[in-house]
Amino acid sequence: MTKRDVLTASTFSAAELENLLELTARMDGTRTGNVLQGRTIGLLFFEKSLRTRVSFEVATVQLGGHCLNIFAENELYGMEPDDRVVMDGTAEEHVKDAAKTLSRYVDALGVRHLHRSKSWDVDRQERLLHAYAEHATVPVINLESTLEHPCQALADIYTIRKNLLDLKGRKLTLAWTDHPEPKGMGPCHSLLHVAAMMGMDLTVAHPLGFELDDEIVGQARTTAESSGGSFRVVNDFESGVDGAEVLYARAWGAQKYWSDPEREAMVKRSLHSWRVDEEIMKRTDNALFMHPLPVRRNVVATDDVLDGDRSVIYDQAENRVHAQKALLTHLLG
Amino acid sequence: MTKRDVLTASTFSAAELENLLELTARMDGTRTGNVLQGRTIGLLFFEKSLRTRVSFEVATVQLGGHCLNIFAENELYGMEPDDRVVMDGTAEEHVKDAAKTLSRYVDALGVRHLHRSKSWDVDRQERLLHAYAEHATVPVINLESTLEHPCQALADIYTIRKNLLDLKGRKLTLAWTDHPEPKGMGPCHSLLHVAAMMGMDLTVAHPLGFELDDEIVGQARTTAESSGGSFRVVNDFESGVDGAEVLYARAWGAQKYWSDPEREAMVKRSLHSWRVDEEIMKRTDNALFMHPLPVRRNVVATDDVLDGDRSVIYDQAENRVHAQKALLTHLLG
Amino acid sequence: MTKRDVLTASTFSAAELENLLELTARMDGTRTGNVLQGRTIGLLFFEKSLRTRVSFEVATVQLGGHCLNIFAENELYGMEPDDRVVMDGTAEEHVKDAAKTLSRYVDALGVRHLHRSKSWDVDRQERLLHAYAEHATVPVINLESTLEHPCQALADIYTIRKNLLDLKGRKLTLAWTDHPEPKGMGPCHSLLHVAAMMGMDLTVAHPLGFELDDEIVGQARTTAESSGGSFRVVNDFESGVDGAEVLYARAWGAQKYWSDPEREAMVKRSLHSWRVDEEIMKRTDNALFMHPLPVRRNVVATDDVLDGDRSVIYDQAENRVHAQKALLTHLLG
Repeated sequence: MTKRDVLTASTFSAAELENLLELTARMDGTRTGNVLQGRTIGLLFFEKSLRTRVSFEVATVQLGGHCLNIFAENELYGMEPDDRVVMDGTAEEHVKDAAKTLSRYVDALGVRHLHRSKSWDVDRQERLLHAYAEHATVPVINLESTLEHPCQALADIYTIRKNLLDLKGRKLTLAWTDHPEPKGMGPCHSLLHVAAMMGMDLTVAHPLGFELDDEIVGQARTTAESSGGSFRVVNDFESGVDGAEVLYARAWGAQKYWSDPEREAMVKRSLHSWRVDEEIMKRTDNALFMHPLPVRRNVVATDDVLDGDRSVIYDQAENRVHAQKALLTHLLG
Repeated sequence: MTKRDVLTASTFSAAELENLLELTARMDGTRTGNVLQGRTIGLLFFEKSLRTRVSFEVATVQLGGHCLNIFAENELYGMEPDDRVVMDGTAEEHVKDAAKTLSRYVDALGVRHLHRSKSWDVDRQERLLHAYAEHATVPVINLESTLEHPCQALADIYTIRKNLLDLKGRKLTLAWTDHPEPKGMGPCHSLLHVAAMMGMDLTVAHPLGFELDDEIVGQARTTAESSGGSFRVVNDFESGVDGAEVLYARAWGAQKYWSDPEREAMVKRSLHSWRVDEEIMKRTDNALFMHPLPVRRNVVATDDVLDGDRSVIYDQAENRVHAQKALLTHLLG
Repeated sequence: MTKRDVLTASTFSAAELENLLELTARMDGTRTGNVLQGRTIGLLFFEKSLRTRVSFEVATVQLGGHCLNIFAENELYGMEPDDRVVMDGTAEEHVKDAAKTLSRYVDALGVRHLHRSKSWDVDRQERLLHAYAEHATVPVINLESTLEHPCQALADIYTIRKNLLDLKGRKLTLAWTDHPEPKGMGPCHSLLHVAAMMGMDLTVAHPLGFELDDEIVGQARTTAESSGGSFRVVNDFESGVDGAEVLYARAWGAQKYWSDPEREAMVKRSLHSWRVDEEIMKRTDNALFMHPLPVRRNVVATDDVLDGDRSVIYDQAENRVHAQKALLTHLLG
């Protein structure tokens, strides 16, 4: 028996995604279950979390299981991810030992960790997450990493389908927005994977210099094209949103300023207009407005848009519970 | 359907308080229930907590529910409470979005937050708590705020009644005491509300300059008088406790030194005698001794008093569980 | 009724230990139970924890109970352990009040606290732990203290017996190892108690100057000798491990450098060879290799040893769950 990790949304086949969405729909509306009876889900947070932590805990409890949260900064020893290191530095425990120990205690392990070193090329390798996956003998679920946020993507695509029904050929724009800080690309990359699998017509709109990850963009393009959809990148906000049926807004940091957030902040001074307001919404085809939260109100999007009747931001949050119940049932049921 | 928040102890009518106390008595002695089966209570702590957190978790579990604790300092993003702000500062999430998200996950939301800015007039508005109550679509329960601590007051008045039985016209003194730090007034204000509702004869004793909140004192006075009780404030410790049947000790900070705790500490050098000892207890009518804990031993009250046979400080703590089970049943049952 | 605390592994009689090991064996392999139905186990952590926290939570849940974790650094007020102190300093709450309050809420209380002052003689008195035990009215379980780690020892001795079966006269070497930091002696002391009770032939190997606690060593020697075993201390690594059937490796700090970790680090520069590698393992009688984790890989022991087929480090970790289920059942069942 090989265990199944969920480190990237691209791990799902189209058929598996379809199954997950159907299972999510069945979970949406029921609050009790027993598929996790007598089982424990461990969640390891190296970053702050509101939605992911609470929605996973609620999902686990609703399935009859026990959820165990570990907040690494306060509770855990420093962790060494690399093999064969002489551990005479500050790291008190090796990921191998933590992962193998936790595998004796829990039935699945969620990990949230974002790397923020000087180098995008190093960070995109997600060494810590992959070390957990390599050493754990139970399924490891990515709760947001440098590159991906597959659980968010499951909730997002479920939210889109619940509203638009058939997704083939439907126009989704993922629009970069302004933000005072360099944010991770995880929710964006994972969304591209699943939306491409559904055969949507995808547009990514961002300023020059704020490219998403090359490899993931390439994968999503290939997937979209082979699923009957399309994929394009534009560097103009307004033309990017024209005719969109779904407008997904999200800030992310630039790879080229990865080691220099101050420089990125300077560059972004001329990009404040990348903010979703009513004028932008009018260019769309009455688009659903989406954002994974937390959101900087009136920077990323205006209150009017966020609180408008096309906004489904809280549905996205709620659907985390249903999607994660489906995922846990799929992995462990 | 309008939801019911519990932000202040004055929210209860006399009849409702009576019901709550009867329900508390029924909870006192039973450990199992199922009124919260399949439900989750979320507790949001912006301050440290021992009794509140543990007693709420135990209460929830005993009612068959799930309790989810969020410690804001370590787990949460910075929170913006004000409407229509351009969020380009340090706050990463708006209270509106946190409250609306959490309302999709939990069935009631407890919030502990005390403001400590330069201005009492600003802090007494309790903007963060009120923002949660405004935006949440589930009941919000105050777990101690700048002004109030209604759950403590329910446990306290239950403790008093369990000992004194009929409370009408019984003499309760709330006595200010010394303390190295400026403490919040929440437990005191909430106690005044409920003791006034029960028609007790209330005395508040504190040094000049350490007045409680004007508006709450006014409300409590009106309530006491219309309930057949009385209300007086004295600035002398000894005459304040004369003949008391309940002596409730608690330190609180002065409004006038709100922005200057060092100055308050200097003023308090001459107030060390505001400490409950055996001599003070002798002036009372064999009073019950009460304090909400944590207590600075031998500063607020002597060991002899705290550990004496009239002290009910641990009963107060225990009764938090029973009172909160009653409250949760009342709100959600 | 007197309550039963578990502060040291020496609290168990030989017969009681035998019962606990049999109960552990019955727990090993079953995941459900109801002996803690309707009960809450409170765990108080003044130090970081991975295995202890997670294994106790899982153990409690598997027995049908509720586990409540309190991380003191972030959640708790400063705590005063000493009697009759005038609490006008920084400690906001007395251990007496915390212990008596928690005893109203939980059915057993675990405490992890290690003292690290300037003086070994002071720290070995474990004032905080003993204050909790003195004031709590429910059983207090030591989750690792300055001197002891009885729950680890129960898991360890169970692990040894599961592998070696009859332990009488079997050779166990506890070997000091190098480590960049001064570690506590708790797991070592508690192991000596229980291994001595089983009548094992015990060798403690450490460099001169790194003596374990005199009193505990004396107790273990007496116990070993009266149980048909033996006890010796050697100051040479290689002769210490010769012929061992169990090699238990662990670093610990020196009493004489207790107030001066920099000096200890300097002394340890010449002790890097106290590391378990394949050469050392070859001197043993095909010994089981044990360590309580977390372990500094390639400092305490090499990867080859830790990951070798005689290593049972993850079994030790897993057996924490089974042993603690046995202990909780023994204390509360």
